[in-house]
Amino acid sequence: MNKPTVLILMGSDSDLSTMEETAKVFTEFGVPYEIHVASAHRSPVKTAKLASEAAGRGIQVIIAAAGVAAHLAGVVAAETTLPVIGVPMAGGALNGVDALYAMVQMPGGIPVGTMAIGKAGAKNAGLFAVQILSLSTPELRNKLAAYKIKMAEEVEQKDQALQATRQG
Amino acid sequence: MNKPTVLILMGSDSDLSTMEETAKVFTEFGVPYEIHVASAHRSPVKTAKLASEAAGRGIQVIIAAAGVAAHLAGVVAAETTLPVIGVPMAGGALNGVDALYAMVQMPGGIPVGTMAIGKAGAKNAGLFAVQILSLSTPELRNKLAAYKIKMAEEVEQKDQALQATRQG
Amino acid sequence: MNKPTVLILMGSDSDLSTMEETAKVFTEFGVPYEIHVASAHRSPVKTAKLASEAAGRGIQVIIAAAGVAAHLAGVVAAETTLPVIGVPMAGGALNGVDALYAMVQMPGGIPVGTMAIGKAGAKNAGLFAVQILSLSTPELRNKLAAYKIKMAEEVEQKDQALQATRQG
Amino acid sequence: MNKPTVLILMGSDSDLSTMEETAKVFTEFGVPYEIHVASAHRSPVKTAKLASEAAGRGIQVIIAAAGVAAHLAGVVAAETTLPVIGVPMAGGALNGVDALYAMVQMPGGIPVGTMAIGKAGAKNAGLFAVQILSLSTPELRNKLAAYKIKMAEEVEQKDQALQATRQG
Amino acid sequence: MNKPTVLILMGSDSDLSTMEETAKVFTEFGVPYEIHVASAHRSPVKTAKLASEAAGRGIQVIIAAAGVAAHLAGVVAAETTLPVIGVPMAGGALNGVDALYAMVQMPGGIPVGTMAIGKAGAKNAGLFAVQILSLSTPELRNKLAAYKIKMAEEVEQKDQALQATRQG
Amino acid sequence: MNKPTVLILMGSDSDLSTMEETAKVFTEFGVPYEIHVASAHRSPVKTAKLASEAAGRGIQVIIAAAGVAAHLAGVVAAETTLPVIGVPMAGGALNGVDALYAMVQMPGGIPVGTMAIGKAGAKNAGLFAVQILSLSTPELRNKLAAYKIKMAEEVEQKDQALQATRQG
Amino acid sequence: MNKPTVLILMGSDSDLSTMEETAKVFTEFGVPYEIHVASAHRSPVKTAKLASEAAGRGIQVIIAAAGVAAHLAGVVAAETTLPVIGVPMAGGALNGVDALYAMVQMPGGIPVGTMAIGKAGAKNAGLFAVQILSLSTPELRNKLAAYKIKMAEEVEQKDQALQATRQG
Amino acid sequence: MNKPTVLILMGSDSDLSTMEETAKVFTEFGVPYEIHVASAHRSPVKTAKLASEAAGRGIQVIIAAAGVAAHLAGVVAAETTLPVIGVPMAGGALNGVDALYAMVQMPGGIPVGTMAIGKAGAKNAGLFAVQILSLSTPELRNKLAAYKIKMAEEVEQKDQALQATRQG
Repeated sequence: MNKPTVLILMGSDSDLSTMEETAKVFTEFGVPYEIHVASAHRSPVKTAKLASEAAGRGIQVIIAAAGVAAHLAGVVAAETTLPVIGVPMAGGALNGVDALYAMVQMPGGIPVGTMAIGKAGAKNAGLFAVQILSLSTPELRNKLAAYKIKMAEEVEQKDQALQATRQG
Repeated sequence: MNKPTVLILMGSDSDLSTMEETAKVFTEFGVPYEIHVASAHRSPVKTAKLASEAAGRGIQVIIAAAGVAAHLAGVVAAETTLPVIGVPMAGGALNGVDALYAMVQMPGGIPVGTMAIGKAGAKNAGLFAVQILSLSTPELRNKLAAYKIKMAEEVEQKDQALQATRQG
Repeated sequence: MNKPTVLILMGSDSDLSTMEETAKVFTEFGVPYEIHVASAHRSPVKTAKLASEAAGRGIQVIIAAAGVAAHLAGVVAAETTLPVIGVPMAGGALNGVDALYAMVQMPGGIPVGTMAIGKAGAKNAGLFAVQILSLSTPELRNKLAAYKIKMAEEVEQKDQALQATRQG
Repeated sequence: MNKPTVLILMGSDSDLSTMEETAKVFTEFGVPYEIHVASAHRSPVKTAKLASEAAGRGIQVIIAAAGVAAHLAGVVAAETTLPVIGVPMAGGALNGVDALYAMVQMPGGIPVGTMAIGKAGAKNAGLFAVQILSLSTPELRNKLAAYKIKMAEEVEQKDQALQATRQG
Repeated sequence: MNKPTVLILMGSDSDLSTMEETAKVFTEFGVPYEIHVASAHRSPVKTAKLASEAAGRGIQVIIAAAGVAAHLAGVVAAETTLPVIGVPMAGGALNGVDALYAMVQMPGGIPVGTMAIGKAGAKNAGLFAVQILSLSTPELRNKLAAYKIKMAEEVEQKDQALQATRQG
Repeated sequence: MNKPTVLILMGSDSDLSTMEETAKVFTEFGVPYEIHVASAHRSPVKTAKLASEAAGRGIQVIIAAAGVAAHLAGVVAAETTLPVIGVPMAGGALNGVDALYAMVQMPGGIPVGTMAIGKAGAKNAGLFAVQILSLSTPELRNKLAAYKIKMAEEVEQKDQALQATRQG
Repeated sequence: MNKPTVLILMGSDSDLSTMEETAKVFTEFGVPYEIHVASAHRSPVKTAKLASEAAGRGIQVIIAAAGVAAHLAGVVAAETTLPVIGVPMAGGALNGVDALYAMVQMPGGIPVGTMAIGKAGAKNAGLFAVQILSLSTPELRNKLAAYKIKMAEEVEQKDQALQATRQG
Repeated sequence: MNKPTVLILMGSDSDLSTMEETAKVFTEFGVPYEIHVASAHRSPVKTAKLASEAAGRGIQVIIAAAGVAAHLAGVVAAETTLPVIGVPMAGGALNGVDALYAMVQMPGGIPVGTMAIGKAGAKNAGLFAVQILSLSTPELRNKLAAYKIKMAEEVEQKDQALQATRQG
């Protein structure tokens, strides 16, 4: 299970600190992935190549992260029939609203499954990819179920910590 | 292949005219699906039940359509580890910006793959679900490849029609 | 009068610094309250339970604080007929506009009385709850009347301090 | 039970078609109410008088509906310690976003429980008032419980109608 | 010429650092003014009194500064026929867009001459008041003409400084 | 009193139907005015001339109406020390938000007293001009006082009509 | 002068009614142009080919019109060093704000000269292209000068027609 | 080739730190340019003169940078038939959205080629000007082609650095 099944593309290497959230999810779930810098605007050939060849290499999901007039996810989606997940980057004068609109408002025919702006979206992109992969990987389904239980437990623990503080 | 693999949930039956776009995609690709009215607010028990039992019934993808303070996708995602696709409905005083934000800005841990507001988003929700299903169904992969070629051909035909008009 | 009459729910323990403003109001007015961390998305069962059992335990008002795609208030309102007050948290790339829309734009049938984004809203959630409780508690009515007079006096004092500075 | 317990104020008589949604709720629940046109800007004296005298007349909740730079709810809240519910009207060049912000973004000290823009908000203002009144009126609590059940049943019926259509 | 002709009202003493920009203009032009803290919400009686008595005391222009759901300018305008200038304060989760909409979107019948959000607006409120007063005070007209010339000269000087730097 | 004291400038003759609201106010108050089409962009020389010569011709207030990237008010304010009132036109893809921002967000030094978007703003521009003129015209002060009383009476009449309907 | 010097690309043939405004400008100024339907998403190969081969065919300026998540202009700009002018289409739930942000917020390195949303932008795209072409075509410079004079004259005529109406 | 062919105008000398990005591009490409402070509002005569005389002095492209109610680009475009590129400055309460709308939403007849808000826009304004100039300067065309290749190489290098880090 060492061959990458997810391809993460970032429009700029400055997106890395945000996309580490995605990578952490894959590490936690044991999902092999690749991560590349590939700009829709500055390196269109490389980007098209990475996108169009992904399926042939065994990639099953592509995650595209970009900011401002974020075209990366759409450009990738134009070149593949794999599911493409978009993560709008925060930052710039509009702080990611531009990136969100440029990713989510795709015209009919070319879907991009868009996540929240910034780190929460990056984390969720990872989880969403795992959910997709889990459809054919029972082991991931079990891990997702356990993850969900752990989230609920953490809320419970935080609540109990709060109660302890209040009564202390 | 008659057992539904996709569950479409709509917060209101008034969303049906938009979500027909999703249904048309599944008809075109031969994907069996279910469609239900289930409100996060008005029928929370039914909604939670539909979401939590979906995987057990063989559903692989859930599509949730809702408007205004659109909670349906998030509430469904809280109850399942299946991939959940959100379609924000247009309409209301804010014309769907509220629904978009309420769907896409999910906190870390609970992803919703959000599509464009309205009919384009509904169509793309269908295609995105097909892309996910195609990972384990080679037949769908071929249909998606053909669909992509057809889209390019239609653009070409429209362009040729335009050229004909201009020179006519 | 020691049994809690108000239940404060926060989607995350990071909301506590904001919601201390609510707690301060209850301390000032002598209103017993409970405060819990309960996420609509990460702990839906606990949240539904807290909401649906609140009335039976003597709770009269529920205050729900959440950020980004803030579903907590709506999810709680779906499970109770008690008045639910929503407080949108600031923060995130949209700084609370998403939370505001996700709380205030509730569909017909499930009201959420929404307050301002952030600390002012948290304080006002407390006061609004006190106003509701005061309808059956004359003592709170008197305290509210005194509070209103004190607010006007504080404005007057600030104005006099300003005049003194200007003429000094 | 004929003395009004709710006071509805509208900034303009053009708001009436929207606020009929509120009135319908009170008729349905058997809650006596008054409805007045009173502008924060054009008739400030009348407005202040209606607001400040409301509690003395037995009013328990005030609902204020206004559009554009909607000051009515805030001006009323400044004159009473009763809970004030705000309903932002749709319309105008900003279609109610201005009214929403002008109502919900109240400074600390003067809460306004704000509802959705337009008819959904008007309906919910009525239900929210009933929820408040129900705290001291068991009969209303029962009606609210029944209303909630009816809502869920209506969703169920719409869903069954949809299933029938699909299979027909 | 010592009797104040302009009344500056601020919703909060925290607005003072911004409104010093207004005060500076009056000092520069030799226009006597008063400045008071008066909240539309927390001290409505004082505010209404200051507004309604202003004309009788010789005030010719009122400037109202407020933030968030900024009602002060509108409430003042409801109580006087003097020209009222509004200055929306920056700050809060929406950084003054709420205050801008709550001031500028006044309904027909009650004008508020609204300035830019924050310090530029505060300065311009002072200049706009001087422009109004200058209609009956030739001395102010001359000062305004000189001020305009000085602004152009300062731009010229900055440009020349820039040229010097570039060629240095 | 036949010499115009107010100059209305419109960026386009399509603004006339909105600006008739301004003209009606002047007719009602007996204020002589001029109205011209003058574009900041298409006829800059004419616009600058109208603005810079206005004071010399006895004009006391200039009202500028423009839409989209509305520069007219700012360009006029750059050429005169008379008070300039801006009216943002509704229409265009952004329905006047662009015009509002382009008018109200003036930099320090060049004030524009901005009104609401569209007809309400046009009416209020007229009233604001009358308020300014009334400072040196007691007759206008009396008319404004009467206008204010009439507005309150009309609210009262509408309220009484509403009460009659409700009881009928 | 019959070889096209401008290439107009539209993401959809539904953009044609807007882009006729561009075409009219070229007809008026005698500038030969081509117009094609080419989608960044549905026909990426055709689009890249049209863009990358344009300069070699003698095209000097490319105009790209697209709506919603408008990627066309950016994708074209990635493939050419010719100046690319973007025209955001109105329409969709966000009425062109999405298209505007997706065009204008280009990252450093890949400029798109963006015009207004809709027909005004389409017309101006034509004029901007003519301005660029005029740098090496004196005849176009003269036509542009004449066009500017005609615009001013039309304003003058409209103003005179208005004066006539008012005095008639 | 020492005579300036590009004129950069800034509404304020505080825009210089942003517009250095433009200047750097011209230095890199060897394009002679002038840069001036010239305010549409505070020095309208100087601004009009610079704009209207530019073509006669051999200027081929004008770049205008301004913030808030950014009128500079439009005012310049009104005075010249040269292509005018607008750069909206970030900053102020709306952080450049106001400047963007005030620049890009130009009415038909007066185009402004608008760039992104802030530094990315400033850099792209320089590149866009170079693209325009390159139409008649083959040397610049070659440099632009080389620049494009270098951008793609830099992305490639960053990607390789990332791969090295990941595997290290």
